[in-house]
Amino acid sequence: MPTPVLISLDAMGGDHGPSVVVPGIREYLRRHGGENVRFLLHGDQTAIAAEMAKCKLTAEVCEIRHTDKVVAMDEKPATAMRRGKGSSLWNAVESVKSGEAGAVVSAGNTGALMAISKLILRMSAPGLERPAIVASWPTLKGVTAVLDVGANIESDAEQLIEFAIMGEAFHAAVHGVKKPTIGVLNVGSEDMKGHEEVREAHAILRAGGLDLNYHGFVEGDDIAKGTVDVVVTDGFTGNIALKTAEGTARFISTLLKGALSSSVQAKMGALLALPALKAMGQKIDPNAINGGPLLGLNGIVVKSHGGATAQGFGNAIRIGVDLARSDYLTTVGSKLGRLDDIMHALPSAAEAGEAAASSGEILQ
Amino acid sequence: MPTPVLISLDAMGGDHGPSVVVPGIREYLRRHGGENVRFLLHGDQTAIAAEMAKCKLTAEVCEIRHTDKVVAMDEKPATAMRRGKGSSLWNAVESVKSGEAGAVVSAGNTGALMAISKLILRMSAPGLERPAIVASWPTLKGVTAVLDVGANIESDAEQLIEFAIMGEAFHAAVHGVKKPTIGVLNVGSEDMKGHEEVREAHAILRAGGLDLNYHGFVEGDDIAKGTVDVVVTDGFTGNIALKTAEGTARFISTLLKGALSSSVQAKMGALLALPALKAMGQKIDPNAINGGPLLGLNGIVVKSHGGATAQGFGNAIRIGVDLARSDYLTTVGSKLGRLDDIMHALPSAAEAGEAAASSGEILQ
Repeated sequence: MPTPVLISLDAMGGDHGPSVVVPGIREYLRRHGGENVRFLLHGDQTAIAAEMAKCKLTAEVCEIRHTDKVVAMDEKPATAMRRGKGSSLWNAVESVKSGEAGAVVSAGNTGALMAISKLILRMSAPGLERPAIVASWPTLKGVTAVLDVGANIESDAEQLIEFAIMGEAFHAAVHGVKKPTIGVLNVGSEDMKGHEEVREAHAILRAGGLDLNYHGFVEGDDIAKGTVDVVVTDGFTGNIALKTAEGTARFISTLLKGALSSSVQAKMGALLALPALKAMGQKIDPNAINGGPLLGLNGIVVKSHGGATAQGFGNAIRIGVDLARSDYLTTVGSKLGRLDDIMHALPSAAEAGEAAASSGEILQ
Repeated sequence: MPTPVLISLDAMGGDHGPSVVVPGIREYLRRHGGENVRFLLHGDQTAIAAEMAKCKLTAEVCEIRHTDKVVAMDEKPATAMRRGKGSSLWNAVESVKSGEAGAVVSAGNTGALMAISKLILRMSAPGLERPAIVASWPTLKGVTAVLDVGANIESDAEQLIEFAIMGEAFHAAVHGVKKPTIGVLNVGSEDMKGHEEVREAHAILRAGGLDLNYHGFVEGDDIAKGTVDVVVTDGFTGNIALKTAEGTARFISTLLKGALSSSVQAKMGALLALPALKAMGQKIDPNAINGGPLLGLNGIVVKSHGGATAQGFGNAIRIGVDLARSDYLTTVGSKLGRLDDIMHALPSAAEAGEAAASSGEILQ
């Protein structure tokens, strides 16, 4: 019997609001069943109730908490923090802070969700300025978690190790892998490659002490190969790698569509191959892997893509449920504590430069 | 009548040595003609002559300079520098230093070619520790030059602008674009996005003074879109972006092959679409875009992929010829001088941090 869990939803978030959020719940229930799962829907009572009337399955497991207020998709994070109190997004996060809900899922404005979550829940990872965003990256072996792909532009060794700790616990909770393998993204696999921050993180991770299954450095092409389960990188490199991959996929798909409509013969071939091509498309459909947690907060927050379909939103809900039911928060809390001890034990840890230069010898 | 040019070749470099280098010359001659082009082939007289006997076209335009010595493909750069004197790679670079040749093309060991070229020719870009490597990236609009994808792991604003200057002159010489557009790779397009180094480079480039066609910040997915002709980034991010794109392309191509052989019907479709798919494959064939110059040296050095075909090596030769015939070196030299003046005029340029914070206002 699964642990009872209550999931808080920002019913007004995303490009479509309740008309995707409510069918998203139905999609979740269809795939995973509704045993011991309940939902709190924050937003406009009338609009939500109208959608629920169309999805009978949802009536038994949902409760509406009315609010008129909504954070716009293009609102600046600073404005959302000042004026967002009482909005569906704000209240949805508050339900996690109060302990009522085990996780919140929102397809709302990313910057506002990050800012409000940080304000209400506070960071649990002391090295991070902002929550880390995880990308679930389709690979030849399944899915690899890549983080940070967002907000922490310059990451020192401590931050990179925090990403490793959070990424491992996330992957274990959501993909059921017991000891996920971890790699640090770099320009080569030898110890001396890359800049100081990755080399210091590599030395500390390799020395053990955090009970992580550390593989070593990985390169850009290792992500899609699925060489490791979790790829750790700073938010600048991670964001550029993710968008470069998306751009490459779109480029090839444009060329492919062009080729398959370039002649009558090619069109006939495409028609015959269509079922196989569609099955392939589903493997890399963004909705099939929708839902990125914001990691490093005292509470579980999952961001759905603003334009996700009901199936996509259902996936984001599943990630929230899996994390809420797992020991993610306690595992991460205990390992972040151990990391803190390790970083303090480093000689002259204050002078990161010197520590980095020497950590290779000291930690082995 | 094209300007007369002599190209120096490391005939022993690459996985195949003269058996690709000599047919590579023939490929070049077939496509571009031999008017006013001559080649100096450094390496084993007997092996080269045997290949030339099979390629009659080459006999009139080639001269062999014999040497027994070869730098191995797996030799460490430091060893190659100490022991490489008199090798085909070394002598090929020497021919540029002496002024005899206008460019050198080698498919040899990248690290050794960089180290020996730097030792013999010296850097012309004062900010660079090592030559920058350019990737010719296939895009929806043609080809975009992305640099550095290699050796300069941490690049400050001055280095990024040096990449912009060299990338522009390279693209103009090789692709015949008069004023190539330039973008700095970042995680967003707003002025305040990204770290200090990209923001400072952005402010200086936007202020003008270097006669560059500066577009602004670009993101990862802009590369394959062909938003700009030249994308500038540090060697760490550039290398990871390039390998991530290669990994993504390989991932999709593996899925595609799997899909097109997943059923009898799909196989029949693939057979019909084969000519169109082959034509598409040629657009992204690495040999069609082979040849990456090492920029920032007092001389033109082009690196061919070690496993390139004769067609690929012919492309690398074309890049060497185009650069040697262009005003690449003088344009870059004059703009690097102007950049030096601009950087010195920045208040407290020594304290990069403060300069970066203020350059936005000062330069506009």
